[in-house]
Amino acid sequence: MKLLLHEIRRNPLLWLLAFVPVVFAAEWLKPEAHTLLFVLSVLAILPLATLLSHATESVAAKTGDAAGGLLNATLGNLTELVIALTALAAGQYMLVKASIAGAIVTNTLFMLGASFLLGGLKHHVQEYNRVNARFQAGLLLLATVALLIPSAVAQADSVTRAAFIQQLSVGLAVLLLVAYGLGMLFSLGTHRELFAGAEHAQSDETGEAPWPLRLALSTLAGVTVLVALVSEIFVESVQQAAETFGMSPAFVGFIVVALVGGAAEMASAFSGARKNRLDLSVGIALGSAAQIALFVAPVLVLLSYVLGPQPMNLLFWPGAVVMVLIATLTAGFVTVGGRSAWFVGVLLLMVYLIFAMTLYLLPPQG
Amino acid sequence: MKLLLHEIRRNPLLWLLAFVPVVFAAEWLKPEAHTLLFVLSVLAILPLATLLSHATESVAAKTGDAAGGLLNATLGNLTELVIALTALAAGQYMLVKASIAGAIVTNTLFMLGASFLLGGLKHHVQEYNRVNARFQAGLLLLATVALLIPSAVAQADSVTRAAFIQQLSVGLAVLLLVAYGLGMLFSLGTHRELFAGAEHAQSDETGEAPWPLRLALSTLAGVTVLVALVSEIFVESVQQAAETFGMSPAFVGFIVVALVGGAAEMASAFSGARKNRLDLSVGIALGSAAQIALFVAPVLVLLSYVLGPQPMNLLFWPGAVVMVLIATLTAGFVTVGGRSAWFVGVLLLMVYLIFAMTLYLLPPQG
Amino acid sequence: MKLLLHEIRRNPLLWLLAFVPVVFAAEWLKPEAHTLLFVLSVLAILPLATLLSHATESVAAKTGDAAGGLLNATLGNLTELVIALTALAAGQYMLVKASIAGAIVTNTLFMLGASFLLGGLKHHVQEYNRVNARFQAGLLLLATVALLIPSAVAQADSVTRAAFIQQLSVGLAVLLLVAYGLGMLFSLGTHRELFAGAEHAQSDETGEAPWPLRLALSTLAGVTVLVALVSEIFVESVQQAAETFGMSPAFVGFIVVALVGGAAEMASAFSGARKNRLDLSVGIALGSAAQIALFVAPVLVLLSYVLGPQPMNLLFWPGAVVMVLIATLTAGFVTVGGRSAWFVGVLLLMVYLIFAMTLYLLPPQG
Repeated sequence: MKLLLHEIRRNPLLWLLAFVPVVFAAEWLKPEAHTLLFVLSVLAILPLATLLSHATESVAAKTGDAAGGLLNATLGNLTELVIALTALAAGQYMLVKASIAGAIVTNTLFMLGASFLLGGLKHHVQEYNRVNARFQAGLLLLATVALLIPSAVAQADSVTRAAFIQQLSVGLAVLLLVAYGLGMLFSLGTHRELFAGAEHAQSDETGEAPWPLRLALSTLAGVTVLVALVSEIFVESVQQAAETFGMSPAFVGFIVVALVGGAAEMASAFSGARKNRLDLSVGIALGSAAQIALFVAPVLVLLSYVLGPQPMNLLFWPGAVVMVLIATLTAGFVTVGGRSAWFVGVLLLMVYLIFAMTLYLLPPQG
Repeated sequence: MKLLLHEIRRNPLLWLLAFVPVVFAAEWLKPEAHTLLFVLSVLAILPLATLLSHATESVAAKTGDAAGGLLNATLGNLTELVIALTALAAGQYMLVKASIAGAIVTNTLFMLGASFLLGGLKHHVQEYNRVNARFQAGLLLLATVALLIPSAVAQADSVTRAAFIQQLSVGLAVLLLVAYGLGMLFSLGTHRELFAGAEHAQSDETGEAPWPLRLALSTLAGVTVLVALVSEIFVESVQQAAETFGMSPAFVGFIVVALVGGAAEMASAFSGARKNRLDLSVGIALGSAAQIALFVAPVLVLLSYVLGPQPMNLLFWPGAVVMVLIATLTAGFVTVGGRSAWFVGVLLLMVYLIFAMTLYLLPPQG
Repeated sequence: MKLLLHEIRRNPLLWLLAFVPVVFAAEWLKPEAHTLLFVLSVLAILPLATLLSHATESVAAKTGDAAGGLLNATLGNLTELVIALTALAAGQYMLVKASIAGAIVTNTLFMLGASFLLGGLKHHVQEYNRVNARFQAGLLLLATVALLIPSAVAQADSVTRAAFIQQLSVGLAVLLLVAYGLGMLFSLGTHRELFAGAEHAQSDETGEAPWPLRLALSTLAGVTVLVALVSEIFVESVQQAAETFGMSPAFVGFIVVALVGGAAEMASAFSGARKNRLDLSVGIALGSAAQIALFVAPVLVLLSYVLGPQPMNLLFWPGAVVMVLIATLTAGFVTVGGRSAWFVGVLLLMVYLIFAMTLYLLPPQG
């Protein structure tokens, strides 16, 4: 507990934890004040996500290499998973899908691009382990194909089609999970030496000693519950708050939710880039995108049979599919060489800005 | 003849030759037993394709480097060509097109992926000549553009459009044949030194002495006739047998025909990969795909004016175009580095599985 | 003036300047003879574009490195800009858009491909600075995304959609100009040492001494006016002349205008390739394409508010978007290695031929 308090004193982001009780109080007193609740829930999720991320890393550091890597690889995007599960249980499938696609695009373009830019402003040319970049890009490419195929093949609007899309989605979800599992076997097991440097550095880099296992585990459990509770308020308020701010629903799901959910990882990725440890930044950005595409998305499809009012499929809005495809191809193109300078970051951020602007301007039901 | 018998004794696959007379007998006695005829014709085509492949290589070995390469490059996919010609003459254009697209996808993803996987399970990291891989990927990219353009441009459903697509298809067929010819001039002629290792090894690798020219030529002629006769039974029975097995017509054309037609090359590619001669496997897989795209497909378009009930065009089902495009891009992405490990094979096979599953689940007329 | 005359005597292309007065006379005497006026205006634009190009380079050489590079980068495609502005003022938005897309495709595939082919026929294998090639390919990729997004997102045909596309187009235009500016800061400023060789060589290469600043500036001003006047005749006559020759409007805008507008740069690029200075050719071809995509196109969108009868958007014909996308991907694929041989040129030219043939055969209103 002392350690936790020490941590909170050190990291100004954690001072936002004060908003966690505030958001619950506001929900109790003014359940109709959507805009206020939205802003408060965002402010409360940010520090919780940071705690969750540090707790996961601490558990991973204690449990040793392979099991720790496994844990990091499955719980690394716990915040995104919990938010999406809340939206799933509320039957908001549009929001779930937009947040999946948005998280992939945000991690691939914004997190990677801003890392390259921030690192490049300080260091003339930076190098990184391109084996890991290409591995993650390969996983992303596979997931993109899986997200693309249903909308490429679905043509006629009939009853058979709905059943077909649903069967296909379950099949694709299973394939993606198998691929993700084999990918972990490859990168943490049989060929771990090729990935040297990319994984290990993470907890060193944050410059913080890992917490004792008990503290880490209880933080993990407690904070997850808090994130789930705050997420419920967030998901309920986000759409109406967005209208107040004049944002389209597509923009909210794709951009706002993705930025909120990934804030903790972004802090680590950007700090790594400034310290010229680009391996870390590239690993977090692309690894996080791959994890959402190959682990979070299929888990949501399968859990929708248990939690949701009806099964969720993998048929995405074609515009989102195009954006995911472009993001993956751009990341693949940019990471071929294993070198970076500030303009590479600008290129990625510009593509992200194009998407954000398009979604912002998009008229409703467009 | 003695050599041929010796060969048959050595290679268990050739024992299946026994099914050649059986399939003709069955066709005579039970012309309505489609499922039986389908299974028997597959079992009969497999050894015939193996013989054809060995005969072609033997003639190539005898006629010297350039001419031999030329021969291998044109007759290497003789089985696929004969099956497609039989379907063409029967007016089954859907089957012909599905088998062209399917052969490209199967060779690029399944044959290459399984080679990487089988090789990678035995050898930690494998290297291969990436000049040849990029050359074949470039040819494939060109062919993909040619297959993609008609469906990208065709929009309105009018009479002028049909004429336009037909003219365009003939023009594209001629361009592809010219590109294929120039590609052979480049890889077997002016720049052959860059491709060293990829071509030559093939007949050494199979561990079999080339046959004498006379035996090879007469085998080539005789077996081609047999393949044509068995193909007729195969093409007639395949659709109805597929229904019995609950497969969609798209799945049959795309997956089943492609796997049957390419079985002989797969055997060579997989054996090469296990022996750590990945140059051979990559050369066979991508070379075979390029040959079907730039030689077999345009020849079929041109021959449809002579053999078919009406001219065939190059307007493919959009889903098939997407799959060919993804397969080509994936192969291009994967072969940039000239190195491979087992997970690269898994990635390619997963993409193939996604396609196969989609086609299997696809409702008819979807 | 003596220098100008000397230049004219040396360069046979400049003898075509005689057609400048001829085309004005013909316009005066026979304003209805569209085919004649079309041919004469093409013959008059070619030498004017050459003069413009040489004058720009001379001014650039005098004003020093960074400013000169900036000038070259903005005025290098002055001919294309003036032709497009003339078409814009005449309200021919279809022609403007076709010529933008056509110029990108023609520079990326035809100019680059012919350079590789011509250089490769003389030199066995050629190498070039791949940093510059990848930089330009990255800019092109960004521009392609910007051109692709409006047609990927636009779905319903409603009033809101028109307003959305217009807002989006202005936003994209501003983003592209910012990206272009930052790209110049990168390649001429902070990281210029990575681009060594690519830029500098241009005026050396043409083997001509730069003109004195006064001559260069007055030539620049005078010839720009002449190009504008001849362009007016060209734009007026091109569509009807095309019908006479049996060409589709799409073919004219995409192929003919692009070839006429880029003739001067092609001469430099091809001459560089023959002299084994492929850096120069790749720089001109891809740099020119990037400049049209990131500078000329957005400037036209913004100027359409001032000059045109109504604002122009960036919603392109889907077929054109596909072609630009394929051209960019092909150029990116081909320039990964920084090496070239004649067959690489053939590949690029074949893709260009596929496009040209498709557009030539395309029925009107297709």
